[in-house]
Amino acid sequence: MRRVPRCGMLSPLLALAALLQAAPAAPPPAATPADPVEADWVTIPDDEILVFTLMGNRRVVIRLAPQIAPVHVGNMRKLALSHWWDGGSVYRLQDNYVAQWGDATEKKPLPPGLADPVPAEYVRPGWSAVVELGRPDPYSAKAGFTAEGWPVATDGSNEWMTHCYGYVGVGRNLAPDTGNGAELYAVIGHGPRHLDRNIALVGRVIEGIEWLSSLPRGTGQLGFYEHEAQRVPIAAARLASDMPAAERPRFQYRAPGNDRFAAYVKARENRTPPFFDVPAGGADICNVPAPVRKAP
Amino acid sequence: MRRVPRCGMLSPLLALAALLQAAPAAPPPAATPADPVEADWVTIPDDEILVFTLMGNRRVVIRLAPQIAPVHVGNMRKLALSHWWDGGSVYRLQDNYVAQWGDATEKKPLPPGLADPVPAEYVRPGWSAVVELGRPDPYSAKAGFTAEGWPVATDGSNEWMTHCYGYVGVGRNLAPDTGNGAELYAVIGHGPRHLDRNIALVGRVIEGIEWLSSLPRGTGQLGFYEHEAQRVPIAAARLASDMPAAERPRFQYRAPGNDRFAAYVKARENRTPPFFDVPAGGADICNVPAPVRKAP
Repeated sequence: MRRVPRCGMLSPLLALAALLQAAPAAPPPAATPADPVEADWVTIPDDEILVFTLMGNRRVVIRLAPQIAPVHVGNMRKLALSHWWDGGSVYRLQDNYVAQWGDATEKKPLPPGLADPVPAEYVRPGWSAVVELGRPDPYSAKAGFTAEGWPVATDGSNEWMTHCYGYVGVGRNLAPDTGNGAELYAVIGHGPRHLDRNIALVGRVIEGIEWLSSLPRGTGQLGFYEHEAQRVPIAAARLASDMPAAERPRFQYRAPGNDRFAAYVKARENRTPPFFDVPAGGADICNVPAPVRKAP
Repeated sequence: MRRVPRCGMLSPLLALAALLQAAPAAPPPAATPADPVEADWVTIPDDEILVFTLMGNRRVVIRLAPQIAPVHVGNMRKLALSHWWDGGSVYRLQDNYVAQWGDATEKKPLPPGLADPVPAEYVRPGWSAVVELGRPDPYSAKAGFTAEGWPVATDGSNEWMTHCYGYVGVGRNLAPDTGNGAELYAVIGHGPRHLDRNIALVGRVIEGIEWLSSLPRGTGQLGFYEHEAQRVPIAAARLASDMPAAERPRFQYRAPGNDRFAAYVKARENRTPPFFDVPAGGADICNVPAPVRKAP
């Protein structure tokens, strides 16, 4: 009889199914206290959805965070409404770090009316998390989620959004420059939490991160593409509120202020059999992805 | 005068240069206490280097960890010496998680003499770290590096290697199966530390991770490629010790048991101006990459 390797295609399908039980889109096999009820899903407003379409109809959908960085997001809305990003490009791909896009030529005039200078918006006073992680955070006093589903950390005085996979920040020059929202990056590697409190985070890629994360890595310093032909053109960038109603992508986030979400956090901190023998007893904030789904 | 966006190509080059000062290959602009001396670099033995060459001459070089998982690594050496992986493929790409390769057909007979069953090798007794991180680890009691430069964590009784970006593990079926070393994966996203103590880690990609991380994501469940044509063929897999001497890749790791490495860890925990206004005061183990370089 021919021996069948025990660890091939079928094995991980079985084995890793456990990992996905709490994922946003995968229906759990049986109801658990960590499952959301229908009322937990909150529709994201159309003017908080920004759609970048890369050449080849590759759509990258960003949930904006006006709750966190209102002035930066205000600038981004103006840039989108003036179609400023159209014809721009993804011009930097640094492995295990960021994809970056905007105007690689550095010559395109900005539209009028942008806030300039932009306030830092890196932190805000207080601690508004409605659910907290169980274990200490190496980068802060504690971490959790706001009522709107944003991951945040605090030093006891201020709070700030955390640099996790897929989150979107604003490129800037040396401090105290704050950037203006025209040049953006998305995290495509291990969460670079050292950027927290040092750069403005403005949202999160909620669909299509793979169109950025799977691009060829740039071979120039810091992952910049060395040749213009390597850049990936941006066909268009539009706010959902600026698109025909029938074409608008509709997404919902899962509200964290309830026992079900708290159970979801605990489930991520303590993975269960049959795959897991030893639950970690904790997780870092970037390993507790805030669930998002397409509006049904 | 035409306005030049402040955050374009040049800005991040300046701004992020600070991030790279402690990186393995980038020569620092000025000597710091975190800089290695020449004697800190230790050559990795040829039989601890495994080279996968994907179709198109894309070379993925893995440093093996016989110090951590000797029986699994023993199996992998036998698989390489028998050319078992030749003609296999990368058959799974799950975004923000893993690339996985081996025998997608699940039908290829294994070479004789493999250890079977393989002991778990997930943890070992004690705590052998020669340098520790300054802040708590959400997944353990503390984290640090062994004398050989492997990242490890402990619960106070046992220690284990940590699932960080680029680290390589052994696919397995449901517990208590341990895999045999034929089906492998590399982490291509945020460190899935919940896998610690539940899967055998056997090494780390030290060159060419971008050939895995930039592959198209699989659209099947768990990132499996749905069509055979999407799989990326493995042309060959060879131990460096099994290659002609002139062709062997030679790498060195930076020994962690000295004040300079301790200063390197502290520098990663406290990033400095001109880019960083607020140092984090801590880092997680996956954000303190163990330096490796090509042998000069």
